[in-house]
Amino acid sequence: MKEIKIGLIGFGTIGTGVAKLLQANAGLIADKVGAMVTLKKIADLDVTTDRGIELPPGTLTSNVADVLDDPEISVVIELIGGYEPAKSFVLRAINNGKHVVTANKALLALHGEEIYPAAAAKGVQVLFEAAVGGGIPVISAILGNMAANNFTTVLGILNGTCNYILTRMTQEGADFGDVLKTAQELGYAEADPTFDIEGVDTAHKLALLVSLCFGTKVDFNAIHTEGISSISSADIGFARDFGYKIKLLAIGKRTGDTVEARVHPTMIPVNYPLADVDGVFNAIRFTGDFIGPVMFYGRGAGMDPTASAVVGDVIEIARNIIAGVSRRCAPLGYRDEAVTTLALKPMGEIEGKYYLRFSAVDKPGVLAKISGALGKYDISIESMIQKGRSAGESVPIVIMTHEAREKDIRAALEEIDTFELISEKSRFIRIEDNLE
Amino acid sequence: MKEIKIGLIGFGTIGTGVAKLLQANAGLIADKVGAMVTLKKIADLDVTTDRGIELPPGTLTSNVADVLDDPEISVVIELIGGYEPAKSFVLRAINNGKHVVTANKALLALHGEEIYPAAAAKGVQVLFEAAVGGGIPVISAILGNMAANNFTTVLGILNGTCNYILTRMTQEGADFGDVLKTAQELGYAEADPTFDIEGVDTAHKLALLVSLCFGTKVDFNAIHTEGISSISSADIGFARDFGYKIKLLAIGKRTGDTVEARVHPTMIPVNYPLADVDGVFNAIRFTGDFIGPVMFYGRGAGMDPTASAVVGDVIEIARNIIAGVSRRCAPLGYRDEAVTTLALKPMGEIEGKYYLRFSAVDKPGVLAKISGALGKYDISIESMIQKGRSAGESVPIVIMTHEAREKDIRAALEEIDTFELISEKSRFIRIEDNLE
Repeated sequence: MKEIKIGLIGFGTIGTGVAKLLQANAGLIADKVGAMVTLKKIADLDVTTDRGIELPPGTLTSNVADVLDDPEISVVIELIGGYEPAKSFVLRAINNGKHVVTANKALLALHGEEIYPAAAAKGVQVLFEAAVGGGIPVISAILGNMAANNFTTVLGILNGTCNYILTRMTQEGADFGDVLKTAQELGYAEADPTFDIEGVDTAHKLALLVSLCFGTKVDFNAIHTEGISSISSADIGFARDFGYKIKLLAIGKRTGDTVEARVHPTMIPVNYPLADVDGVFNAIRFTGDFIGPVMFYGRGAGMDPTASAVVGDVIEIARNIIAGVSRRCAPLGYRDEAVTTLALKPMGEIEGKYYLRFSAVDKPGVLAKISGALGKYDISIESMIQKGRSAGESVPIVIMTHEAREKDIRAALEEIDTFELISEKSRFIRIEDNLE
Repeated sequence: MKEIKIGLIGFGTIGTGVAKLLQANAGLIADKVGAMVTLKKIADLDVTTDRGIELPPGTLTSNVADVLDDPEISVVIELIGGYEPAKSFVLRAINNGKHVVTANKALLALHGEEIYPAAAAKGVQVLFEAAVGGGIPVISAILGNMAANNFTTVLGILNGTCNYILTRMTQEGADFGDVLKTAQELGYAEADPTFDIEGVDTAHKLALLVSLCFGTKVDFNAIHTEGISSISSADIGFARDFGYKIKLLAIGKRTGDTVEARVHPTMIPVNYPLADVDGVFNAIRFTGDFIGPVMFYGRGAGMDPTASAVVGDVIEIARNIIAGVSRRCAPLGYRDEAVTTLALKPMGEIEGKYYLRFSAVDKPGVLAKISGALGKYDISIESMIQKGRSAGESVPIVIMTHEAREKDIRAALEEIDTFELISEKSRFIRIEDNLE
């Protein structure tokens, strides 16, 4: 039986999972590829820590060149994350004619435009299933069997840390800060959780999904990115009263040549399947012009699921190698020259329903003033709750709007916040309840 | 740009969808394949009905040889369904060196063992994503990115007709017969609904999933197949009381070299994501040794979603052709010689929890007699409901058991049904509430 030799850069949690999977299921993989897939070299600066796996002597090296420049290695797996030196390593692997498998969403979201043409020039594959949704085989599905569709929406719960926090806030009525602290103690959140909590990780993943689904380049910095740190248990409670749950959603939409790409806390109806995606699970939902709505659900992170996605990509490339093909599909699924650059819709132009929460002094006439200001900006009210009356003191007033334009919402809230009766900055949360 | 010519056999609903998709998204498909994919010929006995689509003159033919024997056609799509003449057409296409795409689960479940080696001998691909779950790209995922996993379970809601009926029974408390009648009027059920209602269609799909997930041949006739016609609104109501929903599930499990493959109404906890799959939607859930649990959800039937899956397979093959490869992957994903023949576990040996419903005359001591008989067969009771007391008349007694063996359940019920106090044949429904 033939042998395909691969190299791994980065022997952390995911790298260890990949090495374990390649050992544990070597026979199965050989049966599916028609060749032995062997991990020849692993490069990591730390060559001493015991990862709980036995490797043939000489496998582990601190010299990345042992992977990148070994002519026997045909596939390089990059799992160190971040921009540099990951980018240099990936480009060097490509220039040496090696296929690349990576889980590095940050790198691809920001530097894909440099990496993809380099891979095209060398005729090698760059695959990155593990970059979105952990083990969930969602990128392969866009590139593969769903490829005949024009997609109109792609939505997802893509960050396990945020979803874990929002789930516990929803189930226990707990506050953000308290749940974050427990999440950090349990290892579900990093010591510095900014990338997760503020939506940056989700935005990296959305950039990839939008590029793949709509065949367009995306300016990562133009993606509206809002995290969950300002969500209060009050908002979650009111959402429930109106039949909604709050999730951090990555939202991509295409209408003609206009694309929306945004990450923000979103209210979705409790009876949406997405609303039941709890804890560290991820889900991604597409609408295509022929397939209709389709959803994928599974573990969005962790050593084993992510290793499944990485090795799945290796198997794809190994089958090509055995079939004598170098490159069967471009990284975004489209011929490189067919990838366009569509404009992102400015957030002010977004239309939808909104949840508005005001803190107002409980005096006659306050509601008339608020609804008057909303009306001035063409915002009409679908329903309203005022909970806990307390004459002369501040009480929350919650309003659900009909379809409105975001720039009107912002202008109305700015005006309302100047009213003397308003005691706190007013808040809004976008609602997504009209999915085809 | 190169051109890849394909032929279609069967111009019914799905065939029309395929022709429409290939026309509507021709540019998109060309961008993804790097070649024009052209539908050169369509064979159907009915060449007169208006399908609402304009075809180039000479495309439609009543002579199947115009598709099967045209040397310019490299991919044949078979959409006539059934065993014959579908099987002869598929084998003739293969023998003429053409790749085959089919949605015909009945054909593959029963005659795959004849078709797959023929395709291997000719070095062509046989793809069948549309055979399971309509547009949901589940077979591609097993063959593709999830390939590194040893699967332990595959479960699915695979028949839209049954799921529509059970959903309406659950939501409205309606009876099976009434809902079936409406379903037939609405076109959700066939005039002769036996194949759907009695679980045969689901069993065909399960046979394919089990073969793909566990790499084994399956004797279709050995699959335990039970439909939904005996489910009463009383059972659905009791299920709700205990926190369950009733779904027609296809269940495949592998433990070592033993495989379970069975189709039957199943109670699942209401908080399982599968329990929220309602109406004509389908869902398939896997557990793999590395990926963990993963679920796919979408439209399981219909013209457009099924066309998406068929054309997705065509794109896969077209990319191979452009790359100069004939066959990149065997139909079951494993090298043909690696496919095994594992034994199916006899139903009597299945272990699980059970819902038992007795009709018993409401007299002191009846429960003691029933629980005594259960105890004799080593069946212990988790909980019990006796609703609506009516001294001396027949009332339902419902018992949920702990883990028990099916042969013991059957023996106990047979004994209990001989009691004078039992007025109707006792019923049981299997429970699935212990999914990893």
